[in-house]
Amino acid sequence: MVMLVDVPRMSAWIRDTGADKAIADIAARLERDYARWNQFDKVERIAAHSPIGVIELMPIADADRYAFKYVNGHPSNPARGLQTVTAFGAYADVHTGYPILIAEMTLLTALRTAATSAMVARHLARPDSEVMALLGNGSQSEFQALGMRAVMGINRLRIWDTDPGAMDKVQRNLEPLGFEVVRATSAEDACRGADIITTATADKTLATIVHNDWVKPGMHLNAIGGDCPGKTELDTDILRRASVFVEYEPQSRIEGEIQHLPADFPVTEMWRVITGEAPGRTSAEQVTVFDSVGFALEDLTALAHLTDAVGGTPYAGELDLVAEPEDPRDLFSLIGMGGVAATAASSAADSTTESTEGSAAVQRVGAATGR
Amino acid sequence: MVMLVDVPRMSAWIRDTGADKAIADIAARLERDYARWNQFDKVERIAAHSPIGVIELMPIADADRYAFKYVNGHPSNPARGLQTVTAFGAYADVHTGYPILIAEMTLLTALRTAATSAMVARHLARPDSEVMALLGNGSQSEFQALGMRAVMGINRLRIWDTDPGAMDKVQRNLEPLGFEVVRATSAEDACRGADIITTATADKTLATIVHNDWVKPGMHLNAIGGDCPGKTELDTDILRRASVFVEYEPQSRIEGEIQHLPADFPVTEMWRVITGEAPGRTSAEQVTVFDSVGFALEDLTALAHLTDAVGGTPYAGELDLVAEPEDPRDLFSLIGMGGVAATAASSAADSTTESTEGSAAVQRVGAATGR
Repeated sequence: MVMLVDVPRMSAWIRDTGADKAIADIAARLERDYARWNQFDKVERIAAHSPIGVIELMPIADADRYAFKYVNGHPSNPARGLQTVTAFGAYADVHTGYPILIAEMTLLTALRTAATSAMVARHLARPDSEVMALLGNGSQSEFQALGMRAVMGINRLRIWDTDPGAMDKVQRNLEPLGFEVVRATSAEDACRGADIITTATADKTLATIVHNDWVKPGMHLNAIGGDCPGKTELDTDILRRASVFVEYEPQSRIEGEIQHLPADFPVTEMWRVITGEAPGRTSAEQVTVFDSVGFALEDLTALAHLTDAVGGTPYAGELDLVAEPEDPRDLFSLIGMGGVAATAASSAADSTTESTEGSAAVQRVGAATGR
Repeated sequence: MVMLVDVPRMSAWIRDTGADKAIADIAARLERDYARWNQFDKVERIAAHSPIGVIELMPIADADRYAFKYVNGHPSNPARGLQTVTAFGAYADVHTGYPILIAEMTLLTALRTAATSAMVARHLARPDSEVMALLGNGSQSEFQALGMRAVMGINRLRIWDTDPGAMDKVQRNLEPLGFEVVRATSAEDACRGADIITTATADKTLATIVHNDWVKPGMHLNAIGGDCPGKTELDTDILRRASVFVEYEPQSRIEGEIQHLPADFPVTEMWRVITGEAPGRTSAEQVTVFDSVGFALEDLTALAHLTDAVGGTPYAGELDLVAEPEDPRDLFSLIGMGGVAATAASSAADSTTESTEGSAAVQRVGAATGR
């Protein structure tokens, strides 16, 4: 049996744990995993592009554990009542190749993205940062705010979205949690006085969400929305004047803000900052940019944390996803075509049991669906 | 809700449909899909190798549908009571990025591999073929035999495995289904008088399961076991004298029998034979080799067939794997942290419903697991 954390279980686990604590816990584990960067077998994610969206697979492994995520990005989905980004994935044992956990990852991705932004901000933003501009008030925004508060103590938000309803939603969700939320009158207005600017917009276009002259010395930009070829958010002049940090350089060259810049434009992979091999922020005047696209290691970390957190609890269900014949050579026994003869000719009494279980399962499903 | 076909449902569907009919149906659909080869967005599978096995992701898409499979290969698993190969995967809508179906694919892979072998044999084996040698009597072997019978009418088998227990199993499973099964005394003996030689061994080594002098004019070799760098089955002299056919050349150069040969060694992709662009078998004396490694298109075809076959029937369960907040911008509502304030401030009564459902689900799981 494979452990299952579906949407109701994930929702309940996050609610009962507290999203802020879950994000902080993942951020702490992420820092430890980034510190052992060279132990991971890394690859750029594999994208299937269509005219209106993308579907990606994000695999990664170390010597013991393997993880992958399936994730889509369809900016026109909300207009159809669907999520822009949905995800699910698996965590597996490298030694047997068997999956350990299947999980919904729409919610988990929001947690791990917030955890990554917060963990990176701790290295790159000014420690005295107090105000965050939040440009783009969609599904990720509340999680980003909770992460920055949990790790950086930031409580003051300046929000902006071209959709006033999205701003209403962020205000409604975050003010009861103790955030001071200022509704800006424009993107530029949101950036005024901010220490951190988080961009989390969804359009698959080469947008300029933040202009260079809005960026003041000492600001940290947490650019999470530009994460796909043809989908960026920042004025390239910002990148040229700032110190730019990325997750996994080969993937960021394809998908990040730096896709507009020459292949030798200098960037620093975050693991080098975390291990002390490279400097992070070096002065209070420096502009830092986290050109984040989302990397598979963050998913592995989140799945590892989830597995440890929910294993053996009611938050973990079960999924019968791995065929387990009594004799591992005898996969065919699971479909029971040998029937009576097979049972008579061998000790494979279990193949009969399997058959019965199969029929029972279908009958149960039949009852549940009214068919 | 995503459609779910787990192991009990897949077992029941195959048993009730008949494995031979399921394989024949998939073979027919596979031929249609191979005929529209250029409509697919193809990529080599993405492998994570460890010292004792491999975990792979196999994605593919056309303009409407996306599929991927997770599959491992761990030859030492049976000694630990586990399957060498297990798999699961998903079928998704390119237009929304949403998954349609999650399925166990250990059994489904056995069906689609048998369907592929049979469909290809129809183009490459002599139409008067009557006898198949079956070298390697593990999990795939019965499915291979059923596929060759369904498509080629082959009823006579000469089986060989280094493990007599595996031979016992094939005999026990297939004789009651009307096959004439001859237990060979060696691999060479199994090949005597065969029209088709199927190699389906599991060791991750550069093995020579079939020697060149055992291969007689007119034979067709269906080599399905060599499917990974460092894992092959045929004497390379066989390849040099035969006409060699592959699924997707870039992947086969890495994983197939042809990994030992120069990059310009001539091979023919099967879609060209199926569309009539290239010849298949041209004489009764020709030796043909299907250097099969397994390609993602075969999984997409199998998942498409399964979706059509089980949709709306008791064989399809449901999995709550895609977060669906009432307001698609408001993913945060699913964890209900806004609580009373959120409900009061908006019309989001459904976020309360979601919370209740989440708790109920956990309670149900708790009851089921005794916690």
